Amino acid sequence: MKTIYNFSAGPAVLPKSVLEKAQSELVNYQNSGMSVMELSHRSSLFETIIQQAEALLRELMNIPDNYKVLFLQGGASLQFTMVPLNLAQNKKAIYVNTGSWSKKAISEAKKLGNVNIEVIASSEDKNFSYIPEIKKEDVPQDAAYVHITTNNTIEGTAYYKLPDTGDVPIVADMSSNILSINYNVADFGLIYAGAQKNIGPAGLTVVIVREDLIGQSEVLSAMLDYNIQAKNDSLYNTPPTYAIYMAKLVFEWIKENGGVSQMEKRNKEKAALLYNEIDASALFSSPVNPKDRSINNIPFITGSDDLDKKFNQEAVTEGFENLKGHRSVGGMRASLYNAFPKKGVEALTAFMKKFEAENGGNN
Amino acid sequence: MKTIYNFSAGPAVLPKSVLEKAQSELVNYQNSGMSVMELSHRSSLFETIIQQAEALLRELMNIPDNYKVLFLQGGASLQFTMVPLNLAQNKKAIYVNTGSWSKKAISEAKKLGNVNIEVIASSEDKNFSYIPEIKKEDVPQDAAYVHITTNNTIEGTAYYKLPDTGDVPIVADMSSNILSINYNVADFGLIYAGAQKNIGPAGLTVVIVREDLIGQSEVLSAMLDYNIQAKNDSLYNTPPTYAIYMAKLVFEWIKENGGVSQMEKRNKEKAALLYNEIDASALFSSPVNPKDRSINNIPFITGSDDLDKKFNQEAVTEGFENLKGHRSVGGMRASLYNAFPKKGVEALTAFMKKFEAENGGNN
Repeated sequence: MKTIYNFSAGPAVLPKSVLEKAQSELVNYQNSGMSVMELSHRSSLFETIIQQAEALLRELMNIPDNYKVLFLQGGASLQFTMVPLNLAQNKKAIYVNTGSWSKKAISEAKKLGNVNIEVIASSEDKNFSYIPEIKKEDVPQDAAYVHITTNNTIEGTAYYKLPDTGDVPIVADMSSNILSINYNVADFGLIYAGAQKNIGPAGLTVVIVREDLIGQSEVLSAMLDYNIQAKNDSLYNTPPTYAIYMAKLVFEWIKENGGVSQMEKRNKEKAALLYNEIDASALFSSPVNPKDRSINNIPFITGSDDLDKKFNQEAVTEGFENLKGHRSVGGMRASLYNAFPKKGVEALTAFMKKFEAENGGNN
Repeated sequence: MKTIYNFSAGPAVLPKSVLEKAQSELVNYQNSGMSVMELSHRSSLFETIIQQAEALLRELMNIPDNYKVLFLQGGASLQFTMVPLNLAQNKKAIYVNTGSWSKKAISEAKKLGNVNIEVIASSEDKNFSYIPEIKKEDVPQDAAYVHITTNNTIEGTAYYKLPDTGDVPIVADMSSNILSINYNVADFGLIYAGAQKNIGPAGLTVVIVREDLIGQSEVLSAMLDYNIQAKNDSLYNTPPTYAIYMAKLVFEWIKENGGVSQMEKRNKEKAALLYNEIDASALFSSPVNPKDRSINNIPFITGSDDLDKKFNQEAVTEGFENLKGHRSVGGMRASLYNAFPKKGVEALTAFMKKFEAENGGNN
């Protein structure tokens, strides 16, 4: 069969060697006679899996000891509620609006009656094509946190320099660039990420939280309470065991491939290939402010809806899957996460050159 | 290697043919060049999977058209909050206390300030060894619902006859006997179940809800709102795609094997084998009231902690996994879900006979 390159924004491509390992032991894990999916979450075999997953993530991200690592469910979308519910009841919470997911985080937080939400910066004036500057004096120092979205999956922007928030902890939705950019965990109060981009399959959410920030208030539900989840080592109830196992395999793969700094280096190389092609092209362009461009999600357009449509149709027949831009934006979007191969970017840029020559660009 | 029989209460044994099918297509699903784990949840390939999963479940359980089927996350434990949050704000909600999970459902519901919780019956007086009688006149007819746990995983009881609640809808935690007993969905207002017993891997929660019961009140979070989840066909955010795919395979397996009535027949046969052995034994006994005995979770004891421990140790060396009783109860517990083979029960009863002969029973 022909080679497929999967540019999906998530669930996204996983390392082939990880999938092959999962396949080889799917029916019989470590000669136990059982699948990982059949293991009791209280069994020693599964406890080893979840402990190794946590230890690997701590090593890869250099997570300080005073941070808890939680394996939860519900995606970033449930974190939009859990973050203010745990950290900001009867307090002020600050948000920066950099795109569709920031907006959802803000609107969900506002549903909580007893949190005072303030949006101190936004890039909505220019279609979220840049990351707004935040000055320390804009950050109320009595706030519970400042919420940012480190990578905007839909709009294709990212933070390369974190805002100076003074003593106010930064809470980050890192769903689309965790383990892909080498952020310093100690710069954050809380990091959350849906797994389905750089970690593993959908259905797992990773939360990394400084322990002094949790257990401060009554939370509506045990399942939504970071403190209860932390005290139970993510085993308050049955966790998504197979997704945690897959995440462990992905963490091993990242480690074998040089860790997060090496992932960042490769991701920058892949992104540069595509941005160089876009910038050299007379047909394709990037809608994003150059210094804020994401290396993980790269939107591009021809300027013509008809040509965008033609490009997307021909791309599918060439084996490029999921290049179509998000339904709220249009155009094209290439999502280049850790597991996406450089060869796929080379194939895409070659196809873009060919398409441009055939469709009236002056390259 | 020796044969393993996995008596785990959940995550539990899955049909071997389902695991083998999942294994065969793990790396390359339907010649797409992608794993199911790599499919966008907006792709036509995945949409087909989730639609087929729903259609199969509707067929297997004969779900009326005025019921929504939702594929969610967070397990039964998150439903303990979602049910009252969606159905009973500023109303009365009635609970029946039949064991550890009922108690958690009650204590979580009580955390909501604006729901009036009333427990109208309990079997706690006799260690939850029976299902209490509920008379229609005990059910306040202005209540939003009556919550029951159809099968008590830890204590080993089950409802075979539903209470007459008049016009008040029954809400059921059916986690441990959904698809195992042929209940009539139309007798319930809402059914919820964690997947990891009779449906598939952990990390998926199925909710079946009569549509007139939802959308009645403001819900704190979009992720916790049945109405938003229903309007988005469980695709409000990224669902646990691989767990839904596995559930679809399990539903196909149930259908190929004669449907839920056939599952119930087989489960009753398997349970009868074990209960007959227990009842004929001078060493082993069941702590549960005979007419309320679960066919899915069968606790049994020797009456001696030392002998229980010895039995559990020898059982593991014989290839019987996870027979040890729940840490809150002790003794032994055999969980016999749909995928548990009859041969495994025969092997267990043979081992029990042998153990009894060697350890002073007078059988």
